[in-house]
Amino acid sequence: MPYSDKYWQKEEVMPPKEIEELQFKRLKWVIRHAYDNVPFYRQRLKKAGVHPDDIKRREDIAKIPFTTKEHLRENYPFGLFAVPKEKIIRIHTSSGTSGKPKVVGYTRSDLENWINMVARCLYMVGVRERDVFQNMVSYTFFTGGLGFHYAAELIGAMVVPAGTGNTERQIRYMLDFGTTVIHATPSYAMHIKEVAEAMGIKPDEIGLKIGCFGAEPWSDNTRKRLEDAFGLKAYDSYGLSEMNGPGVAFECEEQNGLHIWADHYFIEIVDEEGNPAAEGEKGELVLTPLTKEALPLLRYKTGDITFIMDDECSCGRTHPKIHRILGRADDMIVVRGINVFPSQIEHVLMQIPEVGDHFQVVITRRGSLDELTVRVEVRDEIFTGELADLDKIRQKVQRELQKELGLRTNVELVEKGTLERFVGKAKRVLDLREEV
Amino acid sequence: MPYSDKYWQKEEVMPPKEIEELQFKRLKWVIRHAYDNVPFYRQRLKKAGVHPDDIKRREDIAKIPFTTKEHLRENYPFGLFAVPKEKIIRIHTSSGTSGKPKVVGYTRSDLENWINMVARCLYMVGVRERDVFQNMVSYTFFTGGLGFHYAAELIGAMVVPAGTGNTERQIRYMLDFGTTVIHATPSYAMHIKEVAEAMGIKPDEIGLKIGCFGAEPWSDNTRKRLEDAFGLKAYDSYGLSEMNGPGVAFECEEQNGLHIWADHYFIEIVDEEGNPAAEGEKGELVLTPLTKEALPLLRYKTGDITFIMDDECSCGRTHPKIHRILGRADDMIVVRGINVFPSQIEHVLMQIPEVGDHFQVVITRRGSLDELTVRVEVRDEIFTGELADLDKIRQKVQRELQKELGLRTNVELVEKGTLERFVGKAKRVLDLREEV
Repeated sequence: MPYSDKYWQKEEVMPPKEIEELQFKRLKWVIRHAYDNVPFYRQRLKKAGVHPDDIKRREDIAKIPFTTKEHLRENYPFGLFAVPKEKIIRIHTSSGTSGKPKVVGYTRSDLENWINMVARCLYMVGVRERDVFQNMVSYTFFTGGLGFHYAAELIGAMVVPAGTGNTERQIRYMLDFGTTVIHATPSYAMHIKEVAEAMGIKPDEIGLKIGCFGAEPWSDNTRKRLEDAFGLKAYDSYGLSEMNGPGVAFECEEQNGLHIWADHYFIEIVDEEGNPAAEGEKGELVLTPLTKEALPLLRYKTGDITFIMDDECSCGRTHPKIHRILGRADDMIVVRGINVFPSQIEHVLMQIPEVGDHFQVVITRRGSLDELTVRVEVRDEIFTGELADLDKIRQKVQRELQKELGLRTNVELVEKGTLERFVGKAKRVLDLREEV
Repeated sequence: MPYSDKYWQKEEVMPPKEIEELQFKRLKWVIRHAYDNVPFYRQRLKKAGVHPDDIKRREDIAKIPFTTKEHLRENYPFGLFAVPKEKIIRIHTSSGTSGKPKVVGYTRSDLENWINMVARCLYMVGVRERDVFQNMVSYTFFTGGLGFHYAAELIGAMVVPAGTGNTERQIRYMLDFGTTVIHATPSYAMHIKEVAEAMGIKPDEIGLKIGCFGAEPWSDNTRKRLEDAFGLKAYDSYGLSEMNGPGVAFECEEQNGLHIWADHYFIEIVDEEGNPAAEGEKGELVLTPLTKEALPLLRYKTGDITFIMDDECSCGRTHPKIHRILGRADDMIVVRGINVFPSQIEHVLMQIPEVGDHFQVVITRRGSLDELTVRVEVRDEIFTGELADLDKIRQKVQRELQKELGLRTNVELVEKGTLERFVGKAKRVLDLREEV
């Protein structure tokens, strides 16, 4: 079934020129497909004065207007689908925080492409038939559960469809089933570590080898903590339901950037005005799925900030790499006029040895002034009660945050176990300001 | 993909004689497979003085000792697996009420057989590509979720992987997505009915056509209630994780008995001593999976009470039918020396028009005497507060229960909404007696 010992599909090592040609051929197809079958796109392209035949070179994609998550919501549930309902064999939804959910659909061919992309990712980091894969994310509407489930099963690993929650049982099953690979959010993995310790089990003796972590931005410092705790190699997983789900991009064993599957996605990085970012510059990731029959979203604004790393990769894969997500446009907090991403805070905290694995960001307004408070758990062994020592740590954290953010923050140290734990995506920011 | 307009696979209409031959051929294979690859079976057969070569006629199966759920638990997690771990691509577990969970495993071929059996069932009751299938049972460890999910997807229906809970959203999705088929426990469906009504939605205007109900024994009287409420046709689904999961047996459109797939299961009905029940007599269903590579359980005691209905079926399928499950040996309550199945109580209650859709059975001991109390919700329109009327209903329920059970019960009428609702299997029996 796999293409070779090292690659799941032969497309992973296509010569870059061939990938580009295939990309452009498929790009023309998907624009035509959307134009012919989705009234929303026909109207939009007409209004923009573009016809599918006008796309003659790669650069011409800039003529196509962006698609946003609001467009998906406004066309709830099936308004952007390009095939009749009978051809759709799967629905996923993302509930979002407010308003109508985003509904995404798949034809049989879409599912096959998707699952193979996730299988590429898992195979890339070493998942094989002999592995036991414990899938500790939500199933049902969330694409992360079924996406990884099908792919690990396709590879032939022993899939444990664990879902979230019941952490003690998760840990018992890891030991009893000989789990070697886990898929979870990084924050849930941190929670598992604590629960295992409380059960008297050393996390690095569970036997885990590979950890796939996604659904939240996380930093290299968190990677180091996860790897040290469990004795595994931790890989960053990137995807979004609008682009199938997980499997859009994934780190290879180099752990230096995520290969993004350019035979299935057309990749752009744009600045705040929507213009192409300069080469290697960071900006918002804009994706066009090239093979999606059910839901051909043209130039979809992902909201995720990253940049293209255009080095050749020693893993041999010829697909471009993106840097791990620096932040989500949606997550950005503006405090006293300064843009702050929670991922920046995480990055700073996780490299300070005295800081534990959990933190919370609280934003309040005093008079007309925004206050950013970072509540930080300190490590057990640090919490001696010596106030002078604690104050030194507090000042250190404050200093490091100021260096990174260019902003004075209040830092509050709390005891281990004080802050909420999450089984899915962590909700770390509490914005208590009134609507502005 | 389907064999015909009417049948998913051609095996559904194999001449009975051919099914028998295939069954016996496979029976010999599975006994040999278990003997060769599972030390537990080799020892057990040797101890019983049986060798796979001794199985020369169908009746010889009686020489093989039974397998029970305790054997599965004692061999937790993988002790009864007949293939190496690398060949297993899926694990499910049933947590049970106490002790070690039962762990079941599947090879790729096992999954394929299983999914096709569930697809037979869905196709049999009319599920097609054009349908929208909302799967409202638990995913992850429970076989009901992924089993139906894969099968409906294989048929090509639009699968909504809904899982349990968030009932208002479930109902909104039914309306928005145009759901035509649901899969749920009967008790959860009753709850959906109530919630829809509270939302001002008439359940029979949702547009549902087919309901697949399982995981709990339920009666023809409940069927009538479900069908009247939703304007759908309600079908009984039977399965257990030890025999793959759902898809072991299922009602056809005749709604008179469940076809049990005799090319994949060897079927026996035994009495309390384990001897074959007389033809057409009720007893415990004992199954041997005939094609299961990963977990070839020989003569597995399901604990479910039923009987073989050996009429020919006008649907054309040649596989035998079992009566809907009359009760589970595990669920049996002994009250003052009399055996009572909760399903008998349900059967009585659901045919009394004044009785609502929910009830609870409470068993207590007063001195040395067991008391069985049945708490029954009455219909809203009945609950006038006229004590004389209520007392008449109470007496009627008591009389009908006594007729069926041969036992005096206390009947307590309660207002609609008083008793607990369940999203999964209903827990209707509360045994408050001390351990005996």
